Amino acid sequence: MPKIVVALGGNALQSKDSEPTAAGQLEVVKKTCEHIADISSQGYELAIVHGNGPQVGRILLASEAAKEVTPSMPFDVCGAMSQGYIGYHIQQALKYAMNMRNVHFPVLTVATQIIVDKNDPAFANPTKPIGPFYSEEEAKALEAEKGYCVKEDAGRGWRRVVPSPLPKKIVEIDAIQDLWDSSIVISCGGGGIPVVENMDGTLEGVAAVIDKDFAAELLAEEVGADVLMILTEVEKVAINWGKPDQKNIDHMDLKEAVRYIEEGQFAPGSMLPKVEAAMKFARNYPNKKAIITSLDKAIDALEGKTGTVITFA
Amino acid sequence: MPKIVVALGGNALQSKDSEPTAAGQLEVVKKTCEHIADISSQGYELAIVHGNGPQVGRILLASEAAKEVTPSMPFDVCGAMSQGYIGYHIQQALKYAMNMRNVHFPVLTVATQIIVDKNDPAFANPTKPIGPFYSEEEAKALEAEKGYCVKEDAGRGWRRVVPSPLPKKIVEIDAIQDLWDSSIVISCGGGGIPVVENMDGTLEGVAAVIDKDFAAELLAEEVGADVLMILTEVEKVAINWGKPDQKNIDHMDLKEAVRYIEEGQFAPGSMLPKVEAAMKFARNYPNKKAIITSLDKAIDALEGKTGTVITFA
Repeated sequence: MPKIVVALGGNALQSKDSEPTAAGQLEVVKKTCEHIADISSQGYELAIVHGNGPQVGRILLASEAAKEVTPSMPFDVCGAMSQGYIGYHIQQALKYAMNMRNVHFPVLTVATQIIVDKNDPAFANPTKPIGPFYSEEEAKALEAEKGYCVKEDAGRGWRRVVPSPLPKKIVEIDAIQDLWDSSIVISCGGGGIPVVENMDGTLEGVAAVIDKDFAAELLAEEVGADVLMILTEVEKVAINWGKPDQKNIDHMDLKEAVRYIEEGQFAPGSMLPKVEAAMKFARNYPNKKAIITSLDKAIDALEGKTGTVITFA
Repeated sequence: MPKIVVALGGNALQSKDSEPTAAGQLEVVKKTCEHIADISSQGYELAIVHGNGPQVGRILLASEAAKEVTPSMPFDVCGAMSQGYIGYHIQQALKYAMNMRNVHFPVLTVATQIIVDKNDPAFANPTKPIGPFYSEEEAKALEAEKGYCVKEDAGRGWRRVVPSPLPKKIVEIDAIQDLWDSSIVISCGGGGIPVVENMDGTLEGVAAVIDKDFAAELLAEEVGADVLMILTEVEKVAINWGKPDQKNIDHMDLKEAVRYIEEGQFAPGSMLPKVEAAMKFARNYPNKKAIITSLDKAIDALEGKTGTVITFA
């Protein structure tokens, strides 16, 4: 059966309409896992990657807010914590949903480091806002004191920004590959804990955010997946989105995708990285495909009935 | 080669003399992992279990202190976060230390749930203090509002107390067993995330602390380990500890251990659970042994030169 790496977006983990509590997350995760268990029980072999934006932001927020009572945690550690938090909920809910379908695979979360290149141009231009809002004065003080890069965020205050480098190598890939045949592995959560490789061979966590769709793409390459499936809120990628002439796309080849990107059809930080990750997979594997669709349409999309399919040509 | 489950105590993760920062933890963990890599490079097959008391306490503390800005996290989630945090540091440092010895196993952290019995008598008598200190008024309010069990803590203020039930089943055991031959697995961190099994088969996180030495013992049973090795601050277990007639113990059989316990030789919450976990292993496997020693004496202890060995008879 096809091997599929599934990338779960924020809507698979938390509802926009409810409080961002752990109980709220677990409720949404349970519904998400019903869908994933459906896919698995069709016989597809799965691995799961998930985002962590809101969660790691809140872990950092709590850590900063409490710094008078306990030392605040660096951002790489906050990412590791978010992997534990989200992975725990997914593995708990997915194992149950699988049991209910009489499918008995181990389901487990692997804490995952991903090596990024110190010379990635992203480090010269941090763009990803994280953590709390500050006044200009506080922001400048943090800049001076801790070397944070801070930017004014659309009139809402100042925020720390970190780079978003590309993932180069999944440190725990051997174990993830070993587990593939027997288990459903949840890995590379939040795009992985970003680490750089020092001259002496040590790894060192850095304050950065790897896009989870690019991390999922890298995982799909390294496990030899047949399909990279990026799940989001919409059934299909659209051009002229939200306009009267909106058009949903069934299939894009690389040439079309490039044209749409040049037209500015896909929002940076939202649909654009998903399309770019899908393109990267299609570029590297002309005989394979990437799919962007919604969770509830995933099986239909795998059967070729819906979703946006991205292929080389 | 012998299969060994190693349980790391708090001193393997954080120094008492330095600030409880992430950087401080990483520094101690790096030294710890040099020792573990030494053991592994002797050919012993290892799995690692670690404590999380101070870390999960601080995660909870930060979460509670920041509750006005972001919802506080339940205790099971704090435990999952601590597994990510500590596991990340260990897997990073241990992989490096192994590489330096030209030993190339995957090293990975598995988020681990452990089922406890709802009817465990510990639930009727919570004893384990967690999180911040409160005034009596705050404590009583939390008791009324959230159903926390609160107790006065030796004149230092009021604290929430949670039960410390025995571990019954490691949920992710199949995957941990699969990984044994190829990898060094860090699992059951902090004694595992405690969950109960509901009537409908769902698992549910509970506010409880499973002793990490008992979790390590259960893991040792389930993977068929030859040795349960509990690492702590002292080279040997002692009786009449700190007194002029202190006597270090080279070997205890179950009968002797029971006598010492009856004499009150081992401090509850400190040496007592280690000795009890060791006794449980020895009781179940009359041909195997448990060892209690310090990190730097671990290899000597495995070679029979030091440490306290606990066997059936």
